[in-house]
Amino acid sequence: MERHAATGLLRKPDGTLPHRLARSAATLDGATPNSELADWIAERNAAHRHEVTRIRFDQLRQWHFDPAGGDLRHDSGRFFRVQGLSVRTDYGHVRHWTQPIINQPEIGILGILVREVDGVLHCLMQAKSEPGNVNGVQLSPTVQATKSNYTRVHGGKPVPYLDFFRDPPPEQVLADVLQSEQGSWFYRKRNRNMVVEVTDDPRFDDGAELPEDFRWLTLGQLHALLRVDNLVNMDARTVLSCMPAPAPAPFGEPSTDLADAVARSAQPTAGGLHTTTEVMSWITSRQAAHYVDTTAVPLHEVRGWRRTDAEISHELGLYFSIVAVDITTNGREVASWSQPLVRPFGTGVVALLVKRVEGVLHALVNARVEPGYLDVVELAPTVQCTPENYDHLPPGDHPPFLDVVRASTPEQVLFSTQLSEEGGRFYHAHSEYQIIEVAPDFPDAGLADFRWLTVHQLNELLRHSHYVNVQARSLLACLRGLR
Amino acid sequence: MERHAATGLLRKPDGTLPHRLARSAATLDGATPNSELADWIAERNAAHRHEVTRIRFDQLRQWHFDPAGGDLRHDSGRFFRVQGLSVRTDYGHVRHWTQPIINQPEIGILGILVREVDGVLHCLMQAKSEPGNVNGVQLSPTVQATKSNYTRVHGGKPVPYLDFFRDPPPEQVLADVLQSEQGSWFYRKRNRNMVVEVTDDPRFDDGAELPEDFRWLTLGQLHALLRVDNLVNMDARTVLSCMPAPAPAPFGEPSTDLADAVARSAQPTAGGLHTTTEVMSWITSRQAAHYVDTTAVPLHEVRGWRRTDAEISHELGLYFSIVAVDITTNGREVASWSQPLVRPFGTGVVALLVKRVEGVLHALVNARVEPGYLDVVELAPTVQCTPENYDHLPPGDHPPFLDVVRASTPEQVLFSTQLSEEGGRFYHAHSEYQIIEVAPDFPDAGLADFRWLTVHQLNELLRHSHYVNVQARSLLACLRGLR
Repeated sequence: MERHAATGLLRKPDGTLPHRLARSAATLDGATPNSELADWIAERNAAHRHEVTRIRFDQLRQWHFDPAGGDLRHDSGRFFRVQGLSVRTDYGHVRHWTQPIINQPEIGILGILVREVDGVLHCLMQAKSEPGNVNGVQLSPTVQATKSNYTRVHGGKPVPYLDFFRDPPPEQVLADVLQSEQGSWFYRKRNRNMVVEVTDDPRFDDGAELPEDFRWLTLGQLHALLRVDNLVNMDARTVLSCMPAPAPAPFGEPSTDLADAVARSAQPTAGGLHTTTEVMSWITSRQAAHYVDTTAVPLHEVRGWRRTDAEISHELGLYFSIVAVDITTNGREVASWSQPLVRPFGTGVVALLVKRVEGVLHALVNARVEPGYLDVVELAPTVQCTPENYDHLPPGDHPPFLDVVRASTPEQVLFSTQLSEEGGRFYHAHSEYQIIEVAPDFPDAGLADFRWLTVHQLNELLRHSHYVNVQARSLLACLRGLR
Repeated sequence: MERHAATGLLRKPDGTLPHRLARSAATLDGATPNSELADWIAERNAAHRHEVTRIRFDQLRQWHFDPAGGDLRHDSGRFFRVQGLSVRTDYGHVRHWTQPIINQPEIGILGILVREVDGVLHCLMQAKSEPGNVNGVQLSPTVQATKSNYTRVHGGKPVPYLDFFRDPPPEQVLADVLQSEQGSWFYRKRNRNMVVEVTDDPRFDDGAELPEDFRWLTLGQLHALLRVDNLVNMDARTVLSCMPAPAPAPFGEPSTDLADAVARSAQPTAGGLHTTTEVMSWITSRQAAHYVDTTAVPLHEVRGWRRTDAEISHELGLYFSIVAVDITTNGREVASWSQPLVRPFGTGVVALLVKRVEGVLHALVNARVEPGYLDVVELAPTVQCTPENYDHLPPGDHPPFLDVVRASTPEQVLFSTQLSEEGGRFYHAHSEYQIIEVAPDFPDAGLADFRWLTVHQLNELLRHSHYVNVQARSLLACLRGLR
């Protein structure tokens, strides 16, 4: 099927795509009926017997502390390592610190395969269990693989459907962009977020059986599932956020004022509180105004942290610790392994304040410095913190707008779900993800690091790397489904 | 004057801007008549008495070699330093090397002030002399200032017109983006490229005298001046490349087939050999396919380079050397100073192959690794090299397409001018900048690191940092003026 308009050699974008995406978003039940989803998840949970046990560092198989600098490394030199980082910055209430951080220089693939089923685009999602998950399986992208994974360093099973993402025909790629991950826990990590459309493939012919871990879901179904605690995993959320913008809902679809405000906000013609040129200039000014100077240091030179047999933790008990786990499962490429994980302290609050200005939704984003970003700042949600980390500080050092989030009334809360961070690296890391609506005249307090952006402006930034951080991407994926 | 369309609080881009830019580009003579330009330049050359003498390193005032690592630093710790860099990459014919490199972490401002004079946008250009220039003054942006400069670390005179760029009213900013500079000579240097429009200011009232070094020029005049050897300096070229795209030439303007092909290529609706989504995916694939691993090393640990009293040079005599100069002038913020400069070996060839596909101009760009880039690759011209650096290598290791450039016939050469690199850091650094047209069916040899892009696609990338390198930006500024 050739959807690209072409006159001779010159090609133009697939004009049907925004409409096909809008139709998928408006399709609330799909090829995998909603009525069967709970049973499928329960079944996959049972099938993926999965035991995770905290162990001592000296019980880790194939991992060791480097004798020279104390870094925690895999014997192969691959996967990732835990090292130290020294940070100096002008941003925030602490200007200099050292910390452990995960260094994973390889670029992995997070890919969602999409396909029209009965004329509606569906996403091929995988029920996948990760050692750090608070529950069992979560919905992950079709492919979620580090380079060590898919080049099979550990000699596991091949990654299903990887071939669709390794060297795809250019005209079938709907999105393909490197995006950062948690800049407080990862040093310059990025993954390749991909959406690839498949038309014909014998694996998807009528009558061909789909592997038990995989199901086709519409965008409308995924928007509903994003409201279920700890169900759609971080990797799925970030890829969904990079999906191209849909057209306004098809004519005649039932709508609400809120859905209309979101749809208008996604239209380039609607305008906004700031023009896109002004937004770009603001981002440039923040990159230029702040500095962050990071230097790799050996893990044993990190100060204010202590290492026991089974944990590297901050002396105040705050932030996060490094732990070790042993995993036995029948559902992954390898049946048993052990690895380190980052275990955050407390439950995070990740909240986006939104307001409707003349019927156009705006989101308040924060140009935020994190030491692991490639550039200086990325755009974060309005609030992104673990409140307990600030309890020992004077109120003036508490994160801006946290009080607004905490004082919000039920009718202000457009979205509130507990969502998990990546269970392959983080142990029981989850945050309350919230979208809170404030009055149209709510001020941004004149804070230089905050601006009200439209959904269209954020969508455009998401076509590029290093603008929108992983927490904001998660909330954008959720925001698009607001009804 | 309020040019932004606004309905209440919501604002939209200035729809008149592309037309005003097109009009400026079509205006070939302006407020400063062409007939007076040569005299003005000659006069400024005479006024800026400027003596540059090569000196020994130990004659440098306020600069010293760090006793510990041998880095060449300013006594204040500001400005820049020359350090060592160890590089490992999979790109090119040498996979591992060490080299000296300039580390200048401060973000400077390169700003062009624009203003309508008699209804036509003009750029305020400065005649500025730099110690490394092969000639005297060149045309530079209104403001060209490092942070050390404009915060007056060296106690010089204030930078004229700086106030327009320090905290401009958002709606007067036409462009504002961080862009990289030479990644072989600078480590992660970037400058803030700004275009700011001024409407009313007493300094520009009728009858107010403009300082002798400053003149208002139209885009059409600048396009013509770009064809003069070593006249429009690198900083002016990079800011001009970041100027927003003009509308197609006003109706009734005389045009040529070539100008039409450039104008069509700048239109988003014209289509191209690849869609923008495909171009973005190609760039992502190049960022992910290549790696470059750089580590700062002390300058005295750089191997294959030797230091004499007056020069740090490569043992083969290739690439570049570090030299020291003493400068006496009456035309700068300070009358006399000394500093190190990078002195490249040979004359560079910087060439863009272009072809017309169904009447739309396409440019062949190269996803190129340079060790000083913040990310892995940036888009470079088709050819960017100093041919002599390759003479000692087998023909298979010569840069792709250099033979095509060298074999080009006069009718293929759409543009050919010797242009200088930044004379504040580089000593007599200049390259032959060329735009060479090839046949519509000219293949790209299937090379994974090369793609044919339209001007519109390049213009869109230029709104963001770290996509288009400084040499390609120079050629784009020249390409827009092709008639």
